[in-house]
Amino acid sequence: MSSPHIEVCFSPDFLFQHQLKGKIVVVVDIFRATSCMVTAFAHGVESIIPVAEVEQCKSLQATGLLAAAERDGLKLEGFDLDNSPFSYMQQNIRGKTIAVTTTNGTQAIAQSTAADEIVVGSFLNISSVASYLIESKKDCIVLCAGWKGHYNLEDTLFAGALVEKVKGHFEMEQDAALSALMLYKSSKSELLAITKESAHVKRLAKLNIHKDIEFCLTNDKYQVLPVYTNGRLVNVN
Amino acid sequence: MSSPHIEVCFSPDFLFQHQLKGKIVVVVDIFRATSCMVTAFAHGVESIIPVAEVEQCKSLQATGLLAAAERDGLKLEGFDLDNSPFSYMQQNIRGKTIAVTTTNGTQAIAQSTAADEIVVGSFLNISSVASYLIESKKDCIVLCAGWKGHYNLEDTLFAGALVEKVKGHFEMEQDAALSALMLYKSSKSELLAITKESAHVKRLAKLNIHKDIEFCLTNDKYQVLPVYTNGRLVNVN
Repeated sequence: MSSPHIEVCFSPDFLFQHQLKGKIVVVVDIFRATSCMVTAFAHGVESIIPVAEVEQCKSLQATGLLAAAERDGLKLEGFDLDNSPFSYMQQNIRGKTIAVTTTNGTQAIAQSTAADEIVVGSFLNISSVASYLIESKKDCIVLCAGWKGHYNLEDTLFAGALVEKVKGHFEMEQDAALSALMLYKSSKSELLAITKESAHVKRLAKLNIHKDIEFCLTNDKYQVLPVYTNGRLVNVN
Repeated sequence: MSSPHIEVCFSPDFLFQHQLKGKIVVVVDIFRATSCMVTAFAHGVESIIPVAEVEQCKSLQATGLLAAAERDGLKLEGFDLDNSPFSYMQQNIRGKTIAVTTTNGTQAIAQSTAADEIVVGSFLNISSVASYLIESKKDCIVLCAGWKGHYNLEDTLFAGALVEKVKGHFEMEQDAALSALMLYKSSKSELLAITKESAHVKRLAKLNIHKDIEFCLTNDKYQVLPVYTNGRLVNVN
């Protein structure tokens, strides 16, 4: 039997080149949406409802849920939580459901719903994601959330790191996956320094979130595996 | 005065993310369309008419021009020249005009006509292209022809090599350019071995064109600079 395939898609805007049906999509927004989601589950959040629009998020907040809304790196006024993983390290989110909308990450989830399964990946839970993919034995796509539809470096580096972990179990027919792997291999000893050159980190640097950047590049801090089911993410690990 | 910008676009299918007006587009199809064009000019071809469709190419042949048509790596029946640079190293093309259509390269030119200028790049003439961009002091986009709209490794490696040559003179705001540069820097000592892993080279390997691959990765073999004017490419160097 031939191995399943792994593909990398550099941005939701390039998803039209990929067939989603029958596949697992790993959604990645390293700085910082998927890193936040993983951190939230590690701190006992019951479920996360990712929504594309701020208005939807506000409506969910009005029903009594906690809500987090970020645009262009900033927390929007009137919401409970921001887009820093550190804001999810607190007791009072345990057992709660959080509605979340972000500039890139939640858009990527919204655009992947034709897939068989959607899982949330970050460096913080990379080994849990890798094990899940290997055990699933299904074709998969690592979907980089990018920045407003554009390619970005940090999500691609994660894609390369994930490809490195699973490549013995998957076919890699596509140059995007090969390039992500090459990029990661040439950068992994100095990820923090290299991502500092990226457009998004330069953008975020103005927001003084250096601690977030460093944290989001930590491997295997948590063993959670957020999976999207019936409109919400739950931790299946 | 701030420096002009250099962007990298991984495929003509992603051009919708770029503004072409006011910019120079460097079209790149390393294996093998743009490498062939550069080789043809180095051997005295007067002009090249790149066309997107096979039928257009056949019509131009009927008017007495030489014609080259390639699809999926193979020369189409009834045409004079194929898509190997070696087929352009001959005396009887001197002074001639050649109509050309290829799977990727000529499509990329056809999609770039909104730009201020289109130039043809390959490793074979990389320093001529770099000098032209530096002297022009205009914003530019390196457009990788890719493979049927998909990202490919070899065109991206060329983009990185070109960025390396010009980067002191351009701003690089975009992670695609940064990543192409990183990929090239980590690969340049073993380009041939690395491109052998690429999907396109694996595809071409079946056609037994190893000699072409090696040739197309040679730096600065020729000092020609093909520029697109009034529907045709001419050498302005």
